[in-house]
Amino acid sequence: MLPDELTRLIAEFRKLPSVGLKNATRYAYAVIDMDDAEFESFVTALTDAKAHIRFCKQCGDYTDQEICPRCQTADPSTICVVKEPRDITAIEKTGCYQGLYHVLHGTLDFQKGIGADRIRIKELMDRLEGVKEVIVALNPDMSGEMTAAYLGNLLRPLGIKVTRLAHGIPMGCEIEYADELTLMRALNDRKEY
Amino acid sequence: MLPDELTRLIAEFRKLPSVGLKNATRYAYAVIDMDDAEFESFVTALTDAKAHIRFCKQCGDYTDQEICPRCQTADPSTICVVKEPRDITAIEKTGCYQGLYHVLHGTLDFQKGIGADRIRIKELMDRLEGVKEVIVALNPDMSGEMTAAYLGNLLRPLGIKVTRLAHGIPMGCEIEYADELTLMRALNDRKEY
Repeated sequence: MLPDELTRLIAEFRKLPSVGLKNATRYAYAVIDMDDAEFESFVTALTDAKAHIRFCKQCGDYTDQEICPRCQTADPSTICVVKEPRDITAIEKTGCYQGLYHVLHGTLDFQKGIGADRIRIKELMDRLEGVKEVIVALNPDMSGEMTAAYLGNLLRPLGIKVTRLAHGIPMGCEIEYADELTLMRALNDRKEY
Repeated sequence: MLPDELTRLIAEFRKLPSVGLKNATRYAYAVIDMDDAEFESFVTALTDAKAHIRFCKQCGDYTDQEICPRCQTADPSTICVVKEPRDITAIEKTGCYQGLYHVLHGTLDFQKGIGADRIRIKELMDRLEGVKEVIVALNPDMSGEMTAAYLGNLLRPLGIKVTRLAHGIPMGCEIEYADELTLMRALNDRKEY
């Protein structure tokens, strides 16, 4: 018995990632309870972002410019390859990487028909001038590993160092509780004191 | 280093109830990733709901009409008094109540300066013709209990039966795990087989 407009708004909120009926309903009520200025500001932010945010032609991250500021100022000798723009946000938070990024917008997945032409591999190959190292920061799942191997085979012959993020026991996690695969990796990748 | 428009959109999403930085960021990315038709549909749903949804003049629930359909068709001999429109949704889901509702849009709270004139008590008193029972369905907190007592004192002298929802052990909950207060209520309100 909810009014149609409310039902439709709830349905729209449910399309956002991991939003169920309960949260969608709360969001819809919150929007209706906004005063006019708050609502105006919400809708303006939506339309502004939608109108001005696009992908950087070089790295593929979100930007409001043709080429994002990071591509113009970062250390050009290293490129860190990631799957999604949100991976950049995570790595940037560490504050310990100063180089370029390259977003593939996906990883190889032959079962789903995602070949090398469907992700931004050609774009990566086009920006290798002066690059000494490519850090492959893809998730350690099958699709990520396959993509990493594929990139390694492409890049090593060009004399570029290809590295991957270290795997191992997460900081603060007790060895007792680490899963088998992680522990195996941590053993294989063990480092001398 | 996120573009301004993205930062602002994330800030707007954070104003929705219980949305933290992480979810707000996911929602913002999801909006930017929408195609034009999806985005159009999202923004239209927002503006339509905002433009057409208001409070029913009688019960105070959200509606797109002057008087909501429920007020026009429900059994007029019973009014269920609730704090918020979302309480109606919860009760309607049970499917076992056919009467009218009345949303107070708050409960008495003298510490916060919310007196009887700040919630929809006068509007309730104006629609009591033919009403035989008022079910007070307010939360069992101090403010709710105070409001229930206040309403009882107003309504009983008019010959109207005033009832409250039963408290007790939730269905499916083991007695062992019920909290003290609930168990006390359940004991006091015990029923004969």
